[in-house]
Amino acid sequence: MTPVRLALVPGEPAGIGPELCVRLAHQPRDHSLVVFADPLQLQRAADAIGQPLRLVDADTPALRPGELALVEIPNAVAPPFGQPDPRNAPAVIRALQEAAQGCLDGRFDGIVTGPVHKAAINEGGIAYSGTTELLAEQAGADVVMMLANDVVRVALVTTHLPLRAVADAITPDALARTLHITHEALRRDFGIPAPVIAVLGLNPHAGEAGHLGREELDVIEPVLAALRAQGMTLVGPLPADTAFLPAKLRGFDAVVAMYHDQGLPVLKFSGFERAVNLTLGLPYPRVAVDHGTALELAGKGTADPSSLFAAADTCARIARIRRTLPA
Amino acid sequence: MTPVRLALVPGEPAGIGPELCVRLAHQPRDHSLVVFADPLQLQRAADAIGQPLRLVDADTPALRPGELALVEIPNAVAPPFGQPDPRNAPAVIRALQEAAQGCLDGRFDGIVTGPVHKAAINEGGIAYSGTTELLAEQAGADVVMMLANDVVRVALVTTHLPLRAVADAITPDALARTLHITHEALRRDFGIPAPVIAVLGLNPHAGEAGHLGREELDVIEPVLAALRAQGMTLVGPLPADTAFLPAKLRGFDAVVAMYHDQGLPVLKFSGFERAVNLTLGLPYPRVAVDHGTALELAGKGTADPSSLFAAADTCARIARIRRTLPA
Repeated sequence: MTPVRLALVPGEPAGIGPELCVRLAHQPRDHSLVVFADPLQLQRAADAIGQPLRLVDADTPALRPGELALVEIPNAVAPPFGQPDPRNAPAVIRALQEAAQGCLDGRFDGIVTGPVHKAAINEGGIAYSGTTELLAEQAGADVVMMLANDVVRVALVTTHLPLRAVADAITPDALARTLHITHEALRRDFGIPAPVIAVLGLNPHAGEAGHLGREELDVIEPVLAALRAQGMTLVGPLPADTAFLPAKLRGFDAVVAMYHDQGLPVLKFSGFERAVNLTLGLPYPRVAVDHGTALELAGKGTADPSSLFAAADTCARIARIRRTLPA
Repeated sequence: MTPVRLALVPGEPAGIGPELCVRLAHQPRDHSLVVFADPLQLQRAADAIGQPLRLVDADTPALRPGELALVEIPNAVAPPFGQPDPRNAPAVIRALQEAAQGCLDGRFDGIVTGPVHKAAINEGGIAYSGTTELLAEQAGADVVMMLANDVVRVALVTTHLPLRAVADAITPDALARTLHITHEALRRDFGIPAPVIAVLGLNPHAGEAGHLGREELDVIEPVLAALRAQGMTLVGPLPADTAFLPAKLRGFDAVVAMYHDQGLPVLKFSGFERAVNLTLGLPYPRVAVDHGTALELAGKGTADPSSLFAAADTCARIARIRRTLPA
């Protein structure tokens, strides 16, 4: 079997993404990494943190420490560390799109992405609400955002919505879609034949039998009943405050939360450094870091590379599982 | 100085409250515990879990292991373990009210309460939405619910509201009141002269400068600015998912969350067993267990007493701090 081959996209050139990619190049690995980036940018990051870097042709395996295979995506300008330049927005987006296209075409087994600076992209005149959305649109896929570490996997029904819009966004369709995609990803990407999924309620105490809101009775429970009839193992709707008790978590393969701030605080508290952001539902695995561009740390060599290391490991593991399982 | 004297109320007679009080009686302590309960009920719980219990006159200090001072509140019936009887609702409520009245009259330094079974009280014909609300009304006080363990203290602006009602409930008045009461409690009850309080946003990413909701700009920030001008140290509005990172938490004396499921999952994940529920703003300290009646465990002696132990310790500590500080 040929080694797994992952596309790697550093993200914002002025942030910590490039230097984290250099550090990743030095990690022992059994998969090939092909970085979509400006070689001068990567070299400058390597010099700044005092690590050697050898960029090789995109078609070589690049398995040795300090080595990355390169697909060159030139930046418009070389920004100072910590100062994003909107003129680089097209290059940042192009790197993502070309890497993703390579996955869609079957030239790569998955994509690993660093942090993008949303404001710099928008100031550069490109409509961009997030890499997850960009990849979903390019692939024509319905996707689910999952954050995961070694303690818990959390999938979200809604993501970046004002809180007052959340209740109306919890529709039967949105919930069923999230559960289908999450279930399929646990099966196909994590190799869990019969996943157990905890589903949170929308309201405190999961509505307390209708006393604290009716969405559990009117929306969530009917969807769960219908999907259980299709064979899914779904526990809930559970009160969010007690669903995350460690003893309970050990019984769940994932927790589906109704909204951002219900699901993510425990995930980040329990191991922010090792957490990764997965986009479920794409034709290929995509795993991103769970942190921002950390502009204030760029070029200093002090940024923690754990999340990028975990993202690459997770993406490679998923790619290998996908190769062995029937689709 | 006379020893601190706490009123203890077991809560639901058919739940684990009575047996936890028996176990508490055996803990080493430097404060007096006066239990408001039916003596037969307590004796039956002691027999069931195989622990001796000596009930003594309410006016004695009751400092020896296995000893509790008693104010007798007879139940209407002796319910089987695990089966609340609505006919006992008046006795459950009377125990709370008499203990609280004792605090208001200065006969006790604080009140420690076990879990109440809300449905059994309501079925008994008594309008009751929670002990916190009952005590607030009796005292004529504005109160704030705080959950705390050794990792984090979380105070809530809203508590048991349907999620779709939360955004409109975050008014300048409600937020300012919560912050005033929390600040005063940290100062007076926890002995922190200049508390640092983290305040969460309402929306994901704390609204991301208005892109994900405007309540941070329109409501929260103006309130924080006004209270900072009065001398409070307030950090925020912070994104809820990263505010709880352990390294950040260590810099805060408390976190004020806008709603139930934003604030409590990390608290419970990080140490449910040792967590307690405080009612801030009453004229006396009140500390409750952070768990329910656990009807299925009643009479078995297997229920974890850690939360009641922590509640009594916390209440006694607050009472001692209040004695030493000027009001």
